[in-house]
Amino acid sequence: MKLLYQKIRISFILGISLFLCSCLGSKSISTDAIVLKKQGGFAVGGTVKESPGTFDPIEHGAFNPSNQSTEGQTLHGDHATVYYQIPVNANEFPLVFWHGYGQSMRTWQTTPDGREGFQSIFLRKDFPVYLLDQPRRGLSGRSTEPTRISPATDDQLWFGIFRLGLGNNFYPGVQFSKDPEALDQFYRQMTPDTGPLEIDVNIDAVSALFDKIGPSVLVTHSHSGGQGWLTALKNDNIKAIVSYEPGSNFVFPEGEVPEPMPYLGGELSARGVPMDEFNRQTEIPIIIYYGDYIPEEPVQNPGKEQWRVALAMARKWRDTVNKYGGDVTLVPLPEAGLKGNTHFPMSDLNNKKVAELMYSWLKEKGLTKK
Amino acid sequence: MKLLYQKIRISFILGISLFLCSCLGSKSISTDAIVLKKQGGFAVGGTVKESPGTFDPIEHGAFNPSNQSTEGQTLHGDHATVYYQIPVNANEFPLVFWHGYGQSMRTWQTTPDGREGFQSIFLRKDFPVYLLDQPRRGLSGRSTEPTRISPATDDQLWFGIFRLGLGNNFYPGVQFSKDPEALDQFYRQMTPDTGPLEIDVNIDAVSALFDKIGPSVLVTHSHSGGQGWLTALKNDNIKAIVSYEPGSNFVFPEGEVPEPMPYLGGELSARGVPMDEFNRQTEIPIIIYYGDYIPEEPVQNPGKEQWRVALAMARKWRDTVNKYGGDVTLVPLPEAGLKGNTHFPMSDLNNKKVAELMYSWLKEKGLTKK
Repeated sequence: MKLLYQKIRISFILGISLFLCSCLGSKSISTDAIVLKKQGGFAVGGTVKESPGTFDPIEHGAFNPSNQSTEGQTLHGDHATVYYQIPVNANEFPLVFWHGYGQSMRTWQTTPDGREGFQSIFLRKDFPVYLLDQPRRGLSGRSTEPTRISPATDDQLWFGIFRLGLGNNFYPGVQFSKDPEALDQFYRQMTPDTGPLEIDVNIDAVSALFDKIGPSVLVTHSHSGGQGWLTALKNDNIKAIVSYEPGSNFVFPEGEVPEPMPYLGGELSARGVPMDEFNRQTEIPIIIYYGDYIPEEPVQNPGKEQWRVALAMARKWRDTVNKYGGDVTLVPLPEAGLKGNTHFPMSDLNNKKVAELMYSWLKEKGLTKK
Repeated sequence: MKLLYQKIRISFILGISLFLCSCLGSKSISTDAIVLKKQGGFAVGGTVKESPGTFDPIEHGAFNPSNQSTEGQTLHGDHATVYYQIPVNANEFPLVFWHGYGQSMRTWQTTPDGREGFQSIFLRKDFPVYLLDQPRRGLSGRSTEPTRISPATDDQLWFGIFRLGLGNNFYPGVQFSKDPEALDQFYRQMTPDTGPLEIDVNIDAVSALFDKIGPSVLVTHSHSGGQGWLTALKNDNIKAIVSYEPGSNFVFPEGEVPEPMPYLGGELSARGVPMDEFNRQTEIPIIIYYGDYIPEEPVQNPGKEQWRVALAMARKWRDTVNKYGGDVTLVPLPEAGLKGNTHFPMSDLNNKKVAELMYSWLKEKGLTKK
């Protein structure tokens, strides 16, 4: 009898709970859902080109290639395009994700084998997430300058440079699915430049994004690594940088720029800037991650060689920034216990562990607060 | 004393409610949130090109333009790229959104003045939403064929063709924000083709998407309108079509193709196919919407003229499909009480009302079921 009474009482409380949930203008949802307050897209930065003269919309207003005129018309181009998602009960500092060479915001959306990308992983950790396509790439295709796109059969070149393996053979233990569909998806993430690749155009647009959204954390990958340091030099709203496998454009004080580093197939140089500009890099916490298969000594493998010198240059840069009071951490992932990572740790098979490392660091630096 | 006791009791029940919500693995959220079970991106369709020979990853494995070789390498291209979001407690039939000429998935993500696009509006109505960039556009930039991109100052041409107004002057009563930032954003949605625009390549990729995701509703805009009819001819998983301002490629039975329709600046032709192919269009419900500022008689305004003949052709097409047992509805939005719409009703100021019309039709056709 007492048990029955307790059961009724529990049912009553459960019922009241559900009733209250619906009355209070809320709904009860599974904790593994992604709950967004808002999402959308916008362009930021860019320029406007204008042709002299007067546009005649009657004479030249039809889409007729044989009777076009640019007179008196404008062209809006060279902007970045941003896709953002704001979770409910969001953290204070958003994450801005910037892709690498030949890539787009797809880098962060999903993994080649169809699991969640950093976009969703960090939304679940309550970060507002901004994914961007830099000017003249992907959704930001509208350039003010012309270009020729000449697609070439070069998948295997990237297979090597992105350190999945050599030729068509995966490295042993690589954190990449052996399902052929995953590699097919990976290759299809590539997307060409729709205008000349100009670092200053990219930096201007991304800096305009930070002006618009305020203090945030920049997350870079590969080619955006160097562009990220340069953007931070000019924008105080970049409160921290997480950089996956930065490859170039490390910024040293003038007079302390290391000698160019030769490697099989190329040479890596660094940049010099006046000390007061350089110092900006000492004012924010920065962490750099590199994956696996990066040798310490020269090897007969160009795909590995490029990253051997990048890692060596990154170490010199870390030491220089820290010497002047900076807070740069450099983590080769194998040293943190994560083996088999390619040039794309954010979408490798162990990307959740890679994300946990990043999250711990953000937390340590006070960047996860509400 | 009794009141105090009641207060404690209510507090107790509220507390228990919240406690149970969290214990039951759920959280209580505001009803105006977007609640996603899953989201991500993938490529679909496309081809693989292969160069004869053998790739030497040591000799040609560095990113060195002066020493490249395509020998033995592949190129994955000509796919569509899809960004999908699946809400919790989703409807049975997803919506697949296909952009128009010079556009990308941005069309559906937000409005130029920063409000929610159809992506979020229909997620809130529990539809799984798939946004796509057709091959050689936006995130699907990797083409197997080369092209030259020659950006021209042509914003005002599109201002007219997209029926915002004439020259630089908005039409009176147009459903477009007069904030200059909105027009700036609108122009920056444009993005060029990264390879030759080939309708068959596009149809193949979008058809592959429907093969992958199963029975769904196709939502088209402008240039994808005609491509949508052609895709439906070959894929039975297209269960219905909603088409905003289709402009070309209306498909008639051979022998019943209307005469080409001349207009100021061009001429609109239709396509003829064998009757058994044509008939596929009679098997699914279809609705077509056109906006405002479309004249019934020829006018000295090329931007309006193009749509005058598109609307006239759409009426002939509706009558022909319905004559053979089809279910095509054609709605000029002004006749439904919505005035001032441009060529982009999905992102005009009254886009929520435009969405409500579409939703009512989907409901009427049994396409909103869980």
